[in-house]
Amino acid sequence: MTLTDIAAEKWLGAKDSFSLDQLSGKVVAVHAFQMLCPGCVLHGIPQAQKFSNLFDEKFLTVLGLHTVFEHHEAMQEKSLQAFLHEFRVRFPVGIDTPQANNPLPVSMEKFKLRGTPSWLLFNKKGELVINLFGRVEDAAFSTMVTQVIYEDNLDKKILYGS
Amino acid sequence: MTLTDIAAEKWLGAKDSFSLDQLSGKVVAVHAFQMLCPGCVLHGIPQAQKFSNLFDEKFLTVLGLHTVFEHHEAMQEKSLQAFLHEFRVRFPVGIDTPQANNPLPVSMEKFKLRGTPSWLLFNKKGELVINLFGRVEDAAFSTMVTQVIYEDNLDKKILYGS
Amino acid sequence: MTLTDIAAEKWLGAKDSFSLDQLSGKVVAVHAFQMLCPGCVLHGIPQAQKFSNLFDEKFLTVLGLHTVFEHHEAMQEKSLQAFLHEFRVRFPVGIDTPQANNPLPVSMEKFKLRGTPSWLLFNKKGELVINLFGRVEDAAFSTMVTQVIYEDNLDKKILYGS
Amino acid sequence: MTLTDIAAEKWLGAKDSFSLDQLSGKVVAVHAFQMLCPGCVLHGIPQAQKFSNLFDEKFLTVLGLHTVFEHHEAMQEKSLQAFLHEFRVRFPVGIDTPQANNPLPVSMEKFKLRGTPSWLLFNKKGELVINLFGRVEDAAFSTMVTQVIYEDNLDKKILYGS
Repeated sequence: MTLTDIAAEKWLGAKDSFSLDQLSGKVVAVHAFQMLCPGCVLHGIPQAQKFSNLFDEKFLTVLGLHTVFEHHEAMQEKSLQAFLHEFRVRFPVGIDTPQANNPLPVSMEKFKLRGTPSWLLFNKKGELVINLFGRVEDAAFSTMVTQVIYEDNLDKKILYGS
Repeated sequence: MTLTDIAAEKWLGAKDSFSLDQLSGKVVAVHAFQMLCPGCVLHGIPQAQKFSNLFDEKFLTVLGLHTVFEHHEAMQEKSLQAFLHEFRVRFPVGIDTPQANNPLPVSMEKFKLRGTPSWLLFNKKGELVINLFGRVEDAAFSTMVTQVIYEDNLDKKILYGS
Repeated sequence: MTLTDIAAEKWLGAKDSFSLDQLSGKVVAVHAFQMLCPGCVLHGIPQAQKFSNLFDEKFLTVLGLHTVFEHHEAMQEKSLQAFLHEFRVRFPVGIDTPQANNPLPVSMEKFKLRGTPSWLLFNKKGELVINLFGRVEDAAFSTMVTQVIYEDNLDKKILYGS
Repeated sequence: MTLTDIAAEKWLGAKDSFSLDQLSGKVVAVHAFQMLCPGCVLHGIPQAQKFSNLFDEKFLTVLGLHTVFEHHEAMQEKSLQAFLHEFRVRFPVGIDTPQANNPLPVSMEKFKLRGTPSWLLFNKKGELVINLFGRVEDAAFSTMVTQVIYEDNLDKKILYGS
């Protein structure tokens, strides 16, 4: 799977000309969330904001992906826009493309996400290298991101027990 | 102002027969919030849940009041229902009655709320005795609630600087 | 047991003339702690500081009691003084009187404290009304303190399950 | 400056045979702290424990260094031992060698530490590569550590504004 396999029907908080193709050659961390998921609101989104602020954009691009798989009517675009405004989310957020006969949106199904929050981390070639579900410590995620930035080293497991 | 001045077009999480009249003789704390207000989600709602769990219902009834004054389309009933479900809010939540030509809903205007989160505290006679805007420490709010439960003593200010 | 049953060989951070007799007619909360007990440093001491700041001294007096029952050599007066200075403890702290052939100091044994942190709460008559071991929520302790301030009501249990 | 410039009069929590020479070829993070410094107790020590647990010891060794520059009598070895026991510090902690006519201990002066908490990070050659004073976010410190593990990349600044 690659970064451009992400299907978003729309990108909020991005320039009109934004497309995933433009991120070729960059390490990209995609935070999959739902705006009414407590683990996302209390932990995931603040973590994504922290990483977006911490890393120079030359090295890491953080994106959000709104992967609604439950309470679809409750989390429409209008509500998401207000959420992003009120919680001051500054990075682009894609709306995962909904499917007619499936509660799972397209990207969520394609990438086999197990729920929200999840992190998808893509290397400079756009290849998916990490697919993490649930809460991850800042320190652990930061060392993963840094290893992907220096991607040749990713085969050396530096985290205890990983 | 009294408890029954609160105007809610609907009560979620309550029995069909629920009405504010039934709370006569009880101390009632009403938490006014918006589901997309960060201060409410991160601090106010958890505090309301804590007080609802902490005090015996003989002594204190906690209610929520969804006072939408901005992003109206984003915080409709469907979205509120999903929010209450996901954040496990167990106390009844009224939807403050919207007004046609006013962004402020009825109760919010009547009680002159300055924003969200706010606490309205009513004594056993149903009279409004405290109208607090913003974040309040658990310890400070708890002593206020306790004083209202022993209402004769409320004239004695026990908090420093209050 | 009464407030004056507390035996302190010395009071730090108090006027030379300080004695427990002077607190007659006041509600007094005594925080028993050890300076190297993590639960005390991370939770108990900050809570004691919060209550000391929150309540008007007309209504509540907060005192500390250093009840060393382990690592005696590690927690001598010199170390305690530096601890109180560095952690900015502003209320008087008594050193619980050590005993020759008993690891427990005098007050700790007399009041049957089960460990640290503990709270001892005394009413205006100086009678011990609450003896709490371990971590207690701010909201719960605040309502207890307030009830003792209005002491006639303490028989009415307002906390759920208490 | 190099790792072996650290002067400790004693190492607590280490094997008798422990010496800094044994760490040749390893990345080593040394946490300089005082047991009565609130920023160390509340933030620095928990962070050191987190990094010690997170990273495989093949890649990162975490050590403590007790750099007492104030309240010397209050923080003697007996007190430090009790502190390490009570706060469950599992990594070796050196006692920075005191000096007769200088409040600063030897290593603290040699490495020009500005206070506590501080982090000293040494690369595989034992060279000091980072000397950080004060509170640092887990995510920021983790990416620094990871870069030093892959040391050839340290010249590329990947943190925003760094």
